[in-house]
Amino acid sequence: MPEMLENEANDSGSDPLGQSLSQTFYSDETLYGRELAWLRENMWFVVGHESQIALPGEYFLYEFDRESVIVVRDHAGRINAHYNVCRHHGSRICTQTGGLLRTLTCPYHAWSYDLDGTLRTAPFAPEDFDKTQYSLAPCHVRVHCGLICLSFAQVAPDFDSYIGFITRELQLQDLQRAKIAKRSMFSVDANWKLVVENNLECYHCGPAHRTYCTAHPGIPLGRPEEYVTQARSDRVRRVRAGAGTEESRQFRPAMVGHSSRNFHYLVRQVIGKDVETESVDGRRVAPLMGRSTYDGVQTMGLASPLNSIVLNPDHAVVYNFTPRSVRKTDIEAFWLVKGTATAGIDYDESKVSAVFEPTLKEDKILVENAQLGIESSAYRPGPYIESESFVSEFDRWYLRHIVNKGV
Amino acid sequence: MPEMLENEANDSGSDPLGQSLSQTFYSDETLYGRELAWLRENMWFVVGHESQIALPGEYFLYEFDRESVIVVRDHAGRINAHYNVCRHHGSRICTQTGGLLRTLTCPYHAWSYDLDGTLRTAPFAPEDFDKTQYSLAPCHVRVHCGLICLSFAQVAPDFDSYIGFITRELQLQDLQRAKIAKRSMFSVDANWKLVVENNLECYHCGPAHRTYCTAHPGIPLGRPEEYVTQARSDRVRRVRAGAGTEESRQFRPAMVGHSSRNFHYLVRQVIGKDVETESVDGRRVAPLMGRSTYDGVQTMGLASPLNSIVLNPDHAVVYNFTPRSVRKTDIEAFWLVKGTATAGIDYDESKVSAVFEPTLKEDKILVENAQLGIESSAYRPGPYIESESFVSEFDRWYLRHIVNKGV
Amino acid sequence: MPEMLENEANDSGSDPLGQSLSQTFYSDETLYGRELAWLRENMWFVVGHESQIALPGEYFLYEFDRESVIVVRDHAGRINAHYNVCRHHGSRICTQTGGLLRTLTCPYHAWSYDLDGTLRTAPFAPEDFDKTQYSLAPCHVRVHCGLICLSFAQVAPDFDSYIGFITRELQLQDLQRAKIAKRSMFSVDANWKLVVENNLECYHCGPAHRTYCTAHPGIPLGRPEEYVTQARSDRVRRVRAGAGTEESRQFRPAMVGHSSRNFHYLVRQVIGKDVETESVDGRRVAPLMGRSTYDGVQTMGLASPLNSIVLNPDHAVVYNFTPRSVRKTDIEAFWLVKGTATAGIDYDESKVSAVFEPTLKEDKILVENAQLGIESSAYRPGPYIESESFVSEFDRWYLRHIVNKGV
Repeated sequence: MPEMLENEANDSGSDPLGQSLSQTFYSDETLYGRELAWLRENMWFVVGHESQIALPGEYFLYEFDRESVIVVRDHAGRINAHYNVCRHHGSRICTQTGGLLRTLTCPYHAWSYDLDGTLRTAPFAPEDFDKTQYSLAPCHVRVHCGLICLSFAQVAPDFDSYIGFITRELQLQDLQRAKIAKRSMFSVDANWKLVVENNLECYHCGPAHRTYCTAHPGIPLGRPEEYVTQARSDRVRRVRAGAGTEESRQFRPAMVGHSSRNFHYLVRQVIGKDVETESVDGRRVAPLMGRSTYDGVQTMGLASPLNSIVLNPDHAVVYNFTPRSVRKTDIEAFWLVKGTATAGIDYDESKVSAVFEPTLKEDKILVENAQLGIESSAYRPGPYIESESFVSEFDRWYLRHIVNKGV
Repeated sequence: MPEMLENEANDSGSDPLGQSLSQTFYSDETLYGRELAWLRENMWFVVGHESQIALPGEYFLYEFDRESVIVVRDHAGRINAHYNVCRHHGSRICTQTGGLLRTLTCPYHAWSYDLDGTLRTAPFAPEDFDKTQYSLAPCHVRVHCGLICLSFAQVAPDFDSYIGFITRELQLQDLQRAKIAKRSMFSVDANWKLVVENNLECYHCGPAHRTYCTAHPGIPLGRPEEYVTQARSDRVRRVRAGAGTEESRQFRPAMVGHSSRNFHYLVRQVIGKDVETESVDGRRVAPLMGRSTYDGVQTMGLASPLNSIVLNPDHAVVYNFTPRSVRKTDIEAFWLVKGTATAGIDYDESKVSAVFEPTLKEDKILVENAQLGIESSAYRPGPYIESESFVSEFDRWYLRHIVNKGV
Repeated sequence: MPEMLENEANDSGSDPLGQSLSQTFYSDETLYGRELAWLRENMWFVVGHESQIALPGEYFLYEFDRESVIVVRDHAGRINAHYNVCRHHGSRICTQTGGLLRTLTCPYHAWSYDLDGTLRTAPFAPEDFDKTQYSLAPCHVRVHCGLICLSFAQVAPDFDSYIGFITRELQLQDLQRAKIAKRSMFSVDANWKLVVENNLECYHCGPAHRTYCTAHPGIPLGRPEEYVTQARSDRVRRVRAGAGTEESRQFRPAMVGHSSRNFHYLVRQVIGKDVETESVDGRRVAPLMGRSTYDGVQTMGLASPLNSIVLNPDHAVVYNFTPRSVRKTDIEAFWLVKGTATAGIDYDESKVSAVFEPTLKEDKILVENAQLGIESSAYRPGPYIESESFVSEFDRWYLRHIVNKGV
C-alpha cells in the first residue's frame, strides 16, 4: 500500500478544488466504451460474501458487461469462478441467479462439468475426444475476509494493493465469519461516475437524506471532514477505554489514496454522540461483530470507486456500482451481521438496513436528476466546495488514469 | 411581416404541386439531427398561457430535445424562463411538471435561487464566493396576448415576424385574458414533418374525421379552400352586421407566408351554415371571447409549422408539435375560454374539446400509418392534389430553408 | 434439383465437422444488415396457406424488415400480393392483420384500389389524372401445393429450385386441399442463425425436449441420422404393405442439398415403433391426409434455412423464422389438417399441436441462452459432434454464399 499512494492524506487544502467534469464525460458512448475496457482490465469487483455459498454446489451468478460468471463452492470447499459459457456451442449453463447443484450441466446439449470446471461428460463425443481441452474458462477470483472478489482482466491486477487498504479493519470486524442479513439491488439511470461522485461527498446529506441525518444527529451539514476531527478528538478517551495499541491504530485520519490502477479512501467517523451504531434511533440492531464495541464510531472504506464498505459496531454494508451503459448503473448492496446471529431473534433485517437502504434509494433519484441536467446545453461545470474534496480528487484521478491512459 | 413574405396569397395555381418527399426525409437520423438544430436556432415555441401561472412562484416545465426549462412567474409578476440546471453540479432543480414555489432550490446540495434566477444561497461556499456569477442560465421568453413563447436559440429569432402574423386575431379574441380549460398530450410514432403535413390539409377530413365533419356539416370533402370562398361571400353581410372597418380586416383570404426562418398561414372559414361555433352540435359551448359573435366563423392560424391556433367565437385551441426523435413527435393541445368563465357553470371542458381532441387523436393514427408505409422499399413519392397545396408549399419551404441551409 | 446440389447425401463422414461460428457472426450489426439484404434478394418465404383466404376479398398481412405486404384473394380467385403502401402519400392501407374487404381503401385520403391492385378512385384528382400509373406495387407471389410464398427480391429467385425439393412429398400429402388448424407466433431474443442451427440438429432433443422425446420413444439421444437408418430398414416391409413404386420413392435417405441461393434438407424418419403419428401418445389426432397411412413415419423438410415443413400421416407443421434484428428472430408456426376435417369432431387443435408447439417454445429458451453465452468474451467456437453434421453443413454454406458474396 505505501508506495502506491501518491498522497495518503487529503491535504490538497490550498489547491483549488476545481470544477465538475464537462458534459461529454457523462454522455459520450465512445468514451464509455473505453472506460468499461479500462475498468475491466484494472479493477477487482466485490461480488458477494462466502456465507452465501456455504455448501458444496451452492452458487450464484454475477454479471458484468456481457459476462456472466458462476461463483460456486466445490466439494473441497474451495470457491471457484467460471465463465457461464458452455465449451460446446456457447450456451449459458446456469440460468437461475443462484441455487445448489451437483454438477454444472448445460441445458442445451447436456455437456456436464464438475464444480471445479473440468468437463466430465460430452454425450456422443468421439472416442478420441480430449475432454481436458474443454474445461470451463476460469475467471479470476479471490476470497478475502469472506468477501468474494472477481476480476475480468486478462491479467489480474494485484489483489493486495486493491483490498489491502482496508484489510486490518475487515479483520477487526471479523468479516470472514459474518453472514448476509439482506440484499438489495436497483438500477440508476445515470452515468457510473455520477454515482461514484455522489458517494464521495456528504455535502448533499443535509438537503437530501432525512433518515441518514436522523441516524447521524450531529452531522455538520455537508462537512464530512469534521467527522474525522471528531474522531480524532474522541481518540484519546476511547483508546484509554479500549485495549491499547491495537485499537489506537483504528483511529487514523481519513485517507484518500490512489495509484494508477485504483482510487481508495478510508474514514473513521463518529456516528453521533450518545449513539451505539448507525440505526434510526442510534441503538444497537444486532450483536457486536469481531472486536468492536457499541462506541458509535464507524469506518467507511472505498475499496475501489465501484466498491464501498461501511463497518458499524454491529453490522456492515457492502455496496457496489456496476456500469451497464453510458447512462445506466446498477447498485447492489448487502448487509452483514455476526455469523452466529439468528434472524428474528438477534436481529431484524429491516432494522439493520433501515438507514442505508433509503439513503441509497435517495441517491438514485439525486444522480438521475444530475444526469438529466448535465445533458442540457445550459450545463456548465460548477465549482467544488470544500466538503467535495474527495470528488475533486476522484475526478483528477479519473482524468489522469482512465481518460489519458485510455486514449 | 409584409416584406418577409414571398407569396402572401396561395396562388401557385397553375404551377404543378409536385410530389410528396422521398423516404429519406422521414427516416434519416443524421438529417433529423440537422433539422433539430435548425428548429432550435430559428423557431419560437408556444409553450403555454400565462393564466397557468397566475400567482408568484407558480411554474411549469417545458422540455425540448435534452432541455428542460422552468417557466415561472416572479414576485414582480414577470414571467421568467430558466434552464432547469443547477449551476453547482448540474442537477435538475424542479422535478415536478409544475407547482408553486417560493424559491428555486436544488434538491441535491440545496443551492437556492430567487424566482428571477439569481443565486441566493450556496451552503458552505467560501467567504469570497461571487454569487452573481452563478445565476440560472436564462432561456429566451416572450409573452404575447397571454401566450408564453420560448426560444432555445443562441440568438433569439425576431419575435414580431414570428407571431405578428396573427396578432390582430389574437387581440380581437382577447386571448390575453383567457384561461385554460383543458390540456391534452400524446405521443405520435412518426416524423415531425408528417405531423405538420397532416395539419396542412383537410383532404383527409372526409375519410378520417367523423366528428370533425359533423361539426363542419358543409365541409366539401377535402377542399378547404372553398371555406375561404364561403367566408368571402359571407363577408359583406357580416361586415354590415359588425362594426365596420375593424372587422372587415378580419375577412382576408387565406394566406400562406414564409420567410427564411418561418412558415405561416392564416385562414378564415365558415364552420357551417346555421352553426354558432365549432362543437358537436354546432351550438355554443362557452361565453363569447373578446369582440367575437356566435357567427360560425373560425380563424385557423399557423404561427410556425410546429404551432397552431384555432380561434372559435367561444373557445380557442392551441396545439404544438414537438419533435422527439426521427420517428417520434409529441402533440400537446390546450383549450382556452374567456377568463371570467366558471367551469361547470359557464362551460363544460369535455364539450369544449369534444371536436378537436378526437380529431388530433385520429390524426395520430393516420400519420403513424403513413410513417410505416413510407419506410417500405415500395414507397414512391405520390402526387399532391389541389387541396394539398399548403403541404406542397411547406415541403418546398422545408427543402429550401431547412435542408439546404442546414447542409 | 439435381444439378444444383453440391452433395446430395450427407457424406462428409471422414471430413472434420469443424467448429461453431465465432462471436461476431451472432452480434455484428453491419454483418446483419448484409445478411438481411442477401436473404431479401435470394429467398422465397412461405407465409401462409391459401385456405386462410378462401373467399374473394379475404386477406392477411405479412411483414419482413420494413415491408408490409397484403396477401389477398381477388374476385377471380387469384391470390395477389401488394406492398401495403398507398401510392398517394405512402400510408399503410390495411392496418389489421387480416380480414375481408371489398376494395383496398386507404384510411388516410380514401384512395381506393381493386383487389388486383389497380387504382379505382382518387378523390378530387384532376380530370387528366392517369390512374393506370398508380397501381399498388406488386410483391412476387407463388402458390404451390396450397402454400403461399413471397419474395421481396427485385428479381425473384427461381421458384422451382426453392420448393421443388419437397414438391413430391407435398403432393403425396395433398397439402393443397389442407386447411389451417392452428397458428402460433413468438419472438426469440437470438440471432437468426442460432435459431436455424438449433433446427438442424436433434443432439439437444434428449436433454431439452421432454414432450418430443415422449412422442418419439425410440429416439436415440442426439443421433437423428439413425432415424434414417431405421426408415431404411423398415422400408421393405412398408413398401410391400403399400402401393408399390410410388411409395418406394418416399423412402429415400436423408438429403442435405445446397445451391448458391439456398440450403435444403429432406429426412424421412420413423417416429417410433408402434406409433401412428407424431402425438403425445403416438395415436392419430386427425384424419389421414392425401395418400398417407398411419405408419408412424414422418418427413421433415427444409425449404430454406428459414422455412421448415414436417409432414405426419394426419397433420403437417409449417414453421418459419423471420430475422427482426441482429439479436431478435420471430418464429411463426401453423398446423395443417385434411381440408374436409371438422374442428372439435375430427380433430382437436390442441392435440394436433401438443408435441411441436412446446418443442418450439423450448427451443426459444435454448437459443436465447446460447445467444447470451456467445456474447461473452469467454466464448470460443466449440467442436461439432457427428449428430450436428447438418449444422456444420449450414455454417459452411452460410460462410461461402452469404458472407463471402455479401462482401
